[in-house]
Amino acid sequence: MPFLSFIGLALRSLLHPRSSRLNLFQLYSRTMSAGQERSLGDLTLDENVPSTGRSEEEKATKKAAKAAEKAAREAEKAAKVALRGVKQAAMTTADPDDPLRDQYGDLELVQSKTSCTKSFVRVEDLNEALVGQKVLIRSRVHNVRGKGSSAFLVLRQRTATVQATLFADDETVSKGMVKYASQITRESIVDVGGVICAPLKPIEGCSQSQVELKVDYIRVVSRAVILPFEITDAARSEDEIKAAESRGEKMATVSQDIRLDNRFLDLRTPANQAIFKVQSAVCQLFKELLLNQGFQEIHSPKLIAGASEGGASVFKLEYKGMPACLAQSPQLYKQMAICADMERVFEVGPVFRAEDSYTHRHLCEFMGLDFEMQIYEHYFEVLDVIEKLFEHIFNGLATRFGKELSVISQQYPFEMPVFKPLRLTFPEGIAMLQESGYPDVDPLGDLNTAAERRLGALVKEKYGTDFYVLHRYPAAVRPFYTMPCSDDPQYSNSYDVFIRGEEIISGAQRIHDPDMLTERALACGIEIDTIRSYIDSFRFGAPPHGGAGIGLERVVMLYCGLDNIRKTSLFPRDPKRLTP
Amino acid sequence: MPFLSFIGLALRSLLHPRSSRLNLFQLYSRTMSAGQERSLGDLTLDENVPSTGRSEEEKATKKAAKAAEKAAREAEKAAKVALRGVKQAAMTTADPDDPLRDQYGDLELVQSKTSCTKSFVRVEDLNEALVGQKVLIRSRVHNVRGKGSSAFLVLRQRTATVQATLFADDETVSKGMVKYASQITRESIVDVGGVICAPLKPIEGCSQSQVELKVDYIRVVSRAVILPFEITDAARSEDEIKAAESRGEKMATVSQDIRLDNRFLDLRTPANQAIFKVQSAVCQLFKELLLNQGFQEIHSPKLIAGASEGGASVFKLEYKGMPACLAQSPQLYKQMAICADMERVFEVGPVFRAEDSYTHRHLCEFMGLDFEMQIYEHYFEVLDVIEKLFEHIFNGLATRFGKELSVISQQYPFEMPVFKPLRLTFPEGIAMLQESGYPDVDPLGDLNTAAERRLGALVKEKYGTDFYVLHRYPAAVRPFYTMPCSDDPQYSNSYDVFIRGEEIISGAQRIHDPDMLTERALACGIEIDTIRSYIDSFRFGAPPHGGAGIGLERVVMLYCGLDNIRKTSLFPRDPKRLTP
Repeated sequence: MPFLSFIGLALRSLLHPRSSRLNLFQLYSRTMSAGQERSLGDLTLDENVPSTGRSEEEKATKKAAKAAEKAAREAEKAAKVALRGVKQAAMTTADPDDPLRDQYGDLELVQSKTSCTKSFVRVEDLNEALVGQKVLIRSRVHNVRGKGSSAFLVLRQRTATVQATLFADDETVSKGMVKYASQITRESIVDVGGVICAPLKPIEGCSQSQVELKVDYIRVVSRAVILPFEITDAARSEDEIKAAESRGEKMATVSQDIRLDNRFLDLRTPANQAIFKVQSAVCQLFKELLLNQGFQEIHSPKLIAGASEGGASVFKLEYKGMPACLAQSPQLYKQMAICADMERVFEVGPVFRAEDSYTHRHLCEFMGLDFEMQIYEHYFEVLDVIEKLFEHIFNGLATRFGKELSVISQQYPFEMPVFKPLRLTFPEGIAMLQESGYPDVDPLGDLNTAAERRLGALVKEKYGTDFYVLHRYPAAVRPFYTMPCSDDPQYSNSYDVFIRGEEIISGAQRIHDPDMLTERALACGIEIDTIRSYIDSFRFGAPPHGGAGIGLERVVMLYCGLDNIRKTSLFPRDPKRLTP
Repeated sequence: MPFLSFIGLALRSLLHPRSSRLNLFQLYSRTMSAGQERSLGDLTLDENVPSTGRSEEEKATKKAAKAAEKAAREAEKAAKVALRGVKQAAMTTADPDDPLRDQYGDLELVQSKTSCTKSFVRVEDLNEALVGQKVLIRSRVHNVRGKGSSAFLVLRQRTATVQATLFADDETVSKGMVKYASQITRESIVDVGGVICAPLKPIEGCSQSQVELKVDYIRVVSRAVILPFEITDAARSEDEIKAAESRGEKMATVSQDIRLDNRFLDLRTPANQAIFKVQSAVCQLFKELLLNQGFQEIHSPKLIAGASEGGASVFKLEYKGMPACLAQSPQLYKQMAICADMERVFEVGPVFRAEDSYTHRHLCEFMGLDFEMQIYEHYFEVLDVIEKLFEHIFNGLATRFGKELSVISQQYPFEMPVFKPLRLTFPEGIAMLQESGYPDVDPLGDLNTAAERRLGALVKEKYGTDFYVLHRYPAAVRPFYTMPCSDDPQYSNSYDVFIRGEEIISGAQRIHDPDMLTERALACGIEIDTIRSYIDSFRFGAPPHGGAGIGLERVVMLYCGLDNIRKTSLFPRDPKRLTP
């Protein structure tokens, strides 16, 4: 360990004098983690950098970074060899002369030798009612502190933690056992047995503060090597860091890129555990409501011939000798499902956008929650579904996932969003902006991000809701297949939906008449030949229909008031990131 | 119409003397439906052709097909021009002198002018209790027959049909109205109003046989042009065709390729409506059970650096200047989620395989239902989940989707599969095959498709179940990351699951120890450098774990005893098909 620390420190200062938490293993895994070479200069990229202006700056730093990289590479190579050569110095087996030797030492590799011989208890279920009972727990070692004849561990299981203690008494705990426990590395997985006790005073910093575990059995299931960063450092809130600073202390922080490079470690923080439970919950609530409303789930192909919507950038590839691309949206297929009489369909699937947007809310691959439905008379039928859907999601999260939301807010404080159904027309929105003195809004143009945010704030002020629908967008800013308004073709039967002033949904009534579709495409300067099969799919009787596409990561981000979409994507993909 | 029919017939005989139902529009949409040129020679491809031996045959026919294609192209061009020039001859507006003129004529384009003014009834809900009531229905015209002063329509909504009648009486129905109704093309969408009546005798061939609709209002919402094939022809069972043949009649059939080329039409058959309800149901039941068992849903990236498992063919592409490929499985990411403490995760997402398998059960893109879970002691914990899962799916389909299963069996007759949990070891399976006199089974090799089917039949005979688990596969036939058996490293902690003798699941306990993983990779001849980041993800404390991957389309195909996986994929992708 001292040797490793030395190399780590040496490399850290050599390569990244400014980086507070970069060590040997981290560097090592960066190099190893892909067939892709990412510039070390990217390490400190700010997460909120907008897409424009960045490339200039980058070019300037690129040269310097490359030189540093080259030097680093040699050093890393040497370090890697060293790392592989060094064995863990920690004690892994019990002292054979210890009468209590059967109570500790690394567990034999779990290889399905035994079945149903052990009964494990969950950390979150430990409470005062269990005091005096023997339990067995499999968890991570979140922290460990050895002190002569005693050892204190914090055991962590997802968002729950509990203190475990060992005091050498030669009856239930030996000195060897304490030594063994003290040397277990953080993040190792252990089986710990013992008796639940009530501590003299509540345990600070553990989720289970009213109980602790008096250990009489401890075995390592899987041993962790030195970590690229500490989970505790990654789990700290801005407030804690600032509070420490005001006391004159400097707390370690972990940059977004280092987190993402080691995402499976970063995901272990309580906030991340909760964020992805919430993400799972949003999917669950989405499906619950739609199945309940007579929708059925479909799965459309992601490999398609030609560009799915034309225009925006697509990822291209070769498919068995044919030119292909990745679907930018399930739009056409959802519509074909409607033309195939499925009436109401939804899809949860990846959406691929090869755009160069390096913002806080764009990804190159994200999860689309799409639905499409027959319209009998009016696109308000779609808005009815959207409002029911978000009422269900907002209520469902608040009532069924309150614990997770509370865990997220401990690291990333946020106010619960308010849901009240509200529909404003685009012209009404423009009027609100203009009345508030917002400059330069084009009544027939689109809203930019700043205008959207401002309108969100105005809506919150006036109507008291964090959720609203803006509909009747100018036709010019929507795709050619959007149904125009019958009373004014400058506007369209389209809508966006906002949470906290940011767009999460875009949708519309689609043109289901092939002649009108042709006419609109021509008016928009689209070559008919490129979209003929799309147009033709409406020639065999097409029901009027509309739908919407929702970005899953955005819903979670905006519901929880998070500042970056990378926080709500399990393994984010942006123009600079393809790994892990 | 006669003109179109003429061109259609002419082209049909010109291009495809053997093809019974190929007409102008079909040819036209084939040419138009992609940026991809598919050989016309593929049109009659047999759906059960295995992958081997085919390429030889193909080469031979390719030349001939090319020549035919060239000739056809010119003819098609001319036909296309003709088609576009021809206006529908049918009556679309009411006679202005007709006193009943407000009761018929094409509906104005549904463009969200009115909201909530109409109340529609569903065809499947029509029954004798409604006799005498006025209803309004939006449906397709499945069939239409005009006879002087009367017209008979069959209205179709998904799997339900009802007869609608018009008799000119100059009070509620005029002659103009009958003429208008008689000229509506099949598959057009109509709003039909009228009174529910009890017919003198049950209506044969309609799902709602005890009632019919006496029409007094009929308007076309969307008009269909001439169809590439009739839905009735596509909906016919083999038994019906054979019965007709035995009577000396020849019934029209629709080949699989023509169906798939016009998939959004083909999907309108009752069997297809039901198949994709069942597909949606399997997803729903999968998620229900797993959420109930403490799993959470994750979404892993499909765009990844390098090959996801190495070995098998991958789709490659360029990602912002970096080499990338499409995920062949979410394997690594599921495992990372487990290493990130998520304990039990599942994913429903597309899986991409660039394999050249042109068989009845392989696709290049299919839906993977994957899950991964912590194992405490034994991989039997995973098998417990698998058995619970399929018990839930089998029971759920039988009890909640019986109507859909019955509709499927009308076109594709099948016996309901029997679910009884059964686990056999691989050696036990081999012994059963050997005892039955099955030749050449390698006790340490893999089973081929024929052997699997034979074993399925033997299992059904002996144990009376269509579902079983075969576990303890030879290590040599499983991926390097599969945990070996502790008592005999020639075998592994792995399993396949079979329905009706065909594999639907593959899974295993994974090696969570980086040293053992390295050792196994080396033993399998894998270059460690190519998988180092995978191995390293287990260095920070990894829980023992295992999981499985299920092919959604296969589950639906095998549950319903269908003969081709293309029947259960919404828009199938195989080595020859990238459209629609």
